[in-house]
Amino acid sequence: MQGLMDPTLSPAAETGMRARWFDIIYRHDTPQARQFDLVLIAAIVASVTVIVLDSDPELHAAHGTLFRALEWLFTLAFTLEYAARLWVLRRPVRYAVSLWGVIDLLSILPLYLSVLVPGAQSLLVVRSLRMLRLFRILKLTQYVEEGGVLVGALWRSRRKIFVFLSAVLTIVVVFGAIMYVVEGPEHGFNSIPTAMYWAIVTMATVGFGDIAPGTPLGRFVTAILILIGYSIIAVPTGIYTAELASSMREAGSTGAAHDDRRCTACGLAHHAPDARFCRGCGAPLG
Amino acid sequence: MQGLMDPTLSPAAETGMRARWFDIIYRHDTPQARQFDLVLIAAIVASVTVIVLDSDPELHAAHGTLFRALEWLFTLAFTLEYAARLWVLRRPVRYAVSLWGVIDLLSILPLYLSVLVPGAQSLLVVRSLRMLRLFRILKLTQYVEEGGVLVGALWRSRRKIFVFLSAVLTIVVVFGAIMYVVEGPEHGFNSIPTAMYWAIVTMATVGFGDIAPGTPLGRFVTAILILIGYSIIAVPTGIYTAELASSMREAGSTGAAHDDRRCTACGLAHHAPDARFCRGCGAPLG
Amino acid sequence: MQGLMDPTLSPAAETGMRARWFDIIYRHDTPQARQFDLVLIAAIVASVTVIVLDSDPELHAAHGTLFRALEWLFTLAFTLEYAARLWVLRRPVRYAVSLWGVIDLLSILPLYLSVLVPGAQSLLVVRSLRMLRLFRILKLTQYVEEGGVLVGALWRSRRKIFVFLSAVLTIVVVFGAIMYVVEGPEHGFNSIPTAMYWAIVTMATVGFGDIAPGTPLGRFVTAILILIGYSIIAVPTGIYTAELASSMREAGSTGAAHDDRRCTACGLAHHAPDARFCRGCGAPLG
Amino acid sequence: MQGLMDPTLSPAAETGMRARWFDIIYRHDTPQARQFDLVLIAAIVASVTVIVLDSDPELHAAHGTLFRALEWLFTLAFTLEYAARLWVLRRPVRYAVSLWGVIDLLSILPLYLSVLVPGAQSLLVVRSLRMLRLFRILKLTQYVEEGGVLVGALWRSRRKIFVFLSAVLTIVVVFGAIMYVVEGPEHGFNSIPTAMYWAIVTMATVGFGDIAPGTPLGRFVTAILILIGYSIIAVPTGIYTAELASSMREAGSTGAAHDDRRCTACGLAHHAPDARFCRGCGAPLG
Repeated sequence: MQGLMDPTLSPAAETGMRARWFDIIYRHDTPQARQFDLVLIAAIVASVTVIVLDSDPELHAAHGTLFRALEWLFTLAFTLEYAARLWVLRRPVRYAVSLWGVIDLLSILPLYLSVLVPGAQSLLVVRSLRMLRLFRILKLTQYVEEGGVLVGALWRSRRKIFVFLSAVLTIVVVFGAIMYVVEGPEHGFNSIPTAMYWAIVTMATVGFGDIAPGTPLGRFVTAILILIGYSIIAVPTGIYTAELASSMREAGSTGAAHDDRRCTACGLAHHAPDARFCRGCGAPLG
Repeated sequence: MQGLMDPTLSPAAETGMRARWFDIIYRHDTPQARQFDLVLIAAIVASVTVIVLDSDPELHAAHGTLFRALEWLFTLAFTLEYAARLWVLRRPVRYAVSLWGVIDLLSILPLYLSVLVPGAQSLLVVRSLRMLRLFRILKLTQYVEEGGVLVGALWRSRRKIFVFLSAVLTIVVVFGAIMYVVEGPEHGFNSIPTAMYWAIVTMATVGFGDIAPGTPLGRFVTAILILIGYSIIAVPTGIYTAELASSMREAGSTGAAHDDRRCTACGLAHHAPDARFCRGCGAPLG
Repeated sequence: MQGLMDPTLSPAAETGMRARWFDIIYRHDTPQARQFDLVLIAAIVASVTVIVLDSDPELHAAHGTLFRALEWLFTLAFTLEYAARLWVLRRPVRYAVSLWGVIDLLSILPLYLSVLVPGAQSLLVVRSLRMLRLFRILKLTQYVEEGGVLVGALWRSRRKIFVFLSAVLTIVVVFGAIMYVVEGPEHGFNSIPTAMYWAIVTMATVGFGDIAPGTPLGRFVTAILILIGYSIIAVPTGIYTAELASSMREAGSTGAAHDDRRCTACGLAHHAPDARFCRGCGAPLG
Repeated sequence: MQGLMDPTLSPAAETGMRARWFDIIYRHDTPQARQFDLVLIAAIVASVTVIVLDSDPELHAAHGTLFRALEWLFTLAFTLEYAARLWVLRRPVRYAVSLWGVIDLLSILPLYLSVLVPGAQSLLVVRSLRMLRLFRILKLTQYVEEGGVLVGALWRSRRKIFVFLSAVLTIVVVFGAIMYVVEGPEHGFNSIPTAMYWAIVTMATVGFGDIAPGTPLGRFVTAILILIGYSIIAVPTGIYTAELASSMREAGSTGAAHDDRRCTACGLAHHAPDARFCRGCGAPLG
């Protein structure tokens, strides 16, 4: 689906060094390309780990300089990789403005900006988007098919999910407004947006408890909201499971699916994989 | 199911201006009717957004006058629309007392009442019911079929869900009473209703934590209640998924359940994937 | 399954008043028996409501005398009913020691005991078991079949559920012990039983927050426990849904199941309900 | 799968006392072997109960000496059992370094170490791993098949679960980083690891509430995270249910998936319900 199939990805040259690097960077079926992928995965995971650890005050105090050095190292490496990605393409601009191109750029830009623009520290968190780059690589391995089944089932459920989310949003607005009136600011329901936040937290059964009903009526309304949420939880699971079961039956991904043979005598299909004779008329199967 | 099929909705005239407006308001298959629907959806969402934002103390202090003006504007528009809805019908009273008619009235009435009756401020929250009007419009688009499958599966599960809710209510009463005795008022279990609220919050895995068991015995009972709730969670999901899977198999909504072939002899559709002859007339399928 | 089929329930007489009352009390297919059932359901729900409301301190202060009077009324009525249940049976003792007989007795005994034995107030909560009596009546209506499908699927899943609960218990013991060592009493993990209570609350995604990890290592262990719980939640739902879907397919309870006809020409089965010709060979169906 | 099939488990002798004890310890199909299993299960459960109860400060103060004596008794018994397990095998070292061998050793070692090494008290918790030994025995009863279906469905879902966990981890990193910037240390989001812990607690709908968003923007981000988590919860359930349903259909464990007929000509079983001829040899089925 991606890779050579993607129209934005056409090599800048048929042969020579740029063609060789194109194969290494954008293809995944040669030993060198696979090594490149593995190194890239390791670099992404390591650099995100550095960002995560560096945010801890104690670790930052103890190893801040090391983390900073590593982060520069990774950023320089990703910058080189980004330049190489553009260099080997025939139409680098098309790639640069594509989703993956933007994510690649956002992974490296914040560090440079933090030097140029003082106070741009909070931008550094944008670097965690780097994590998304993992998916480009995962997309192109043996996990494509598995991921495809999962995403395909989600995609085919999209209309049902839209109807479902509309219903959820309506319930959240209506119950948020009711609880705002019933409980009021003295129990933490300061405004309808806050009450809507509470309603989402409650319906989804998260239940932080930072805001909780304090009046008997408020608790009764909460119990009703929970029972509604409880019944409604079943809906996305039901939608998705039914779609996925249907996908898997189709794709035959469970190994036990029936094969495509059709009896030449009576036309019956859906024979077991080990069948040698038609179960309907007893004629031998081809 | 709604629209022209609804017996309460018959046009006041066959031709003329009222007939034209009837088509615009109640039908959904002409360009003008679609534009009317889109404007109405936008107005509903915008007016509910105003209500929600206005409830925030800071935003109210800053933009209260603007919100109030917008709210009057939307209410006047909805009042006009409500009048038009009644005007174009042959039997406006039948519509006025129907579910949608009442919701339409509740969407506009509170603002007028808040002027006439001082202190009716809390009534304003009733306006949030306006959100429900979205569903009338959604019902009449391409989402009808999807929503129909979801609601149909719920409807056919109704008896199982009733049995399930009776079981949940019984468990809530029994465990509420036990916890009221075991934990008592000193841990927040002031009364059996409060303990029942806690039991619902716990069984549904919401777990606010505003009330939590403090004694070893209470914690043991809680663990048992959680394990029961945990096992029981599976039931509505199971019921609903099984019904939905069965609906979808029937409706062929997944694309793979039934193929698209239509008998050239009798026109019958929805043939099984392995069918070689029409099940209605016995003619061979193409 | 119950009622006349139950070997413990045989009428004391073939004809006469006892036989008539036997039919009213234990059968459910005559108009009088149905009226008796409805009155009993109303009395059970009303009496449990009184118990629940009476536990609220404010309501007790305001209406305590009324509640007490109503409770004596209901208890006397249930006592009469219990006597009648024993009187009309051939073998009353067998009924008295059966599960339903014990529940019936527990529903009326506490109030008498609270008079005889001072300080038996906390026994009064046993009366809430009265709620369970609803199920005897529900069992004998049109909900039998629906309930039967639900319980049947649970029953057939029992071994899988036992294996699942063993795994859950092991995880709870191991993670409880780990968290007891990692977090210790200063964060509320006073003992392994307390830590096991916390592990159940966490794994089942209830998450009260009365006890929560405070150290980085404890939070890491918690994250792992949550991910394990998250994966494991799928198991009972999966077991139950798969069993229920299979039950429903069998029972044909969804209305759209295929009929039993088999083509006499080629032997193909599973025809659509509206099929008049075999989809495999085109021969007319019987 | 285990037991005599396990290549690490070969008896040290064909006949004699060691052979007899091998049968008692490692086999499960003789009366003596079954008694040994039952005694072992009871000892494991009892010894873990002692460890759990001993951790409670009050119970430890009251019965500490008894618990200590019991624990020494159980440890000596398990030590004897461990020695016997090694003694009856032809290659005891292979067993000692296998997973079950290590767990067996970890169950007894900590108590001895706590005597030799002062301050090794916290090691005692390792003894709770003893609980895992239950699974060795459970593996070899009638629960093997049920457990096998459950684990098989998990195993076949492994790639989908890996893709799913990668997506969860990415969402946790990205939302953790966002919330760290949005909420900051003043609301408890001290570092990205802490925020990631919060994101896992929230996505999995546990929601302790020890850390909760305090700003409007943080609450909005939380609502989005919850809705994402809510949609994603469906995925593992869906994957697992679909796999399990497919396993059960295959295994015919539900009784209705395949019928019980066996071909009288070739003995093949597991025929489709509509089969009239054997799929293996073409002979008519009875």
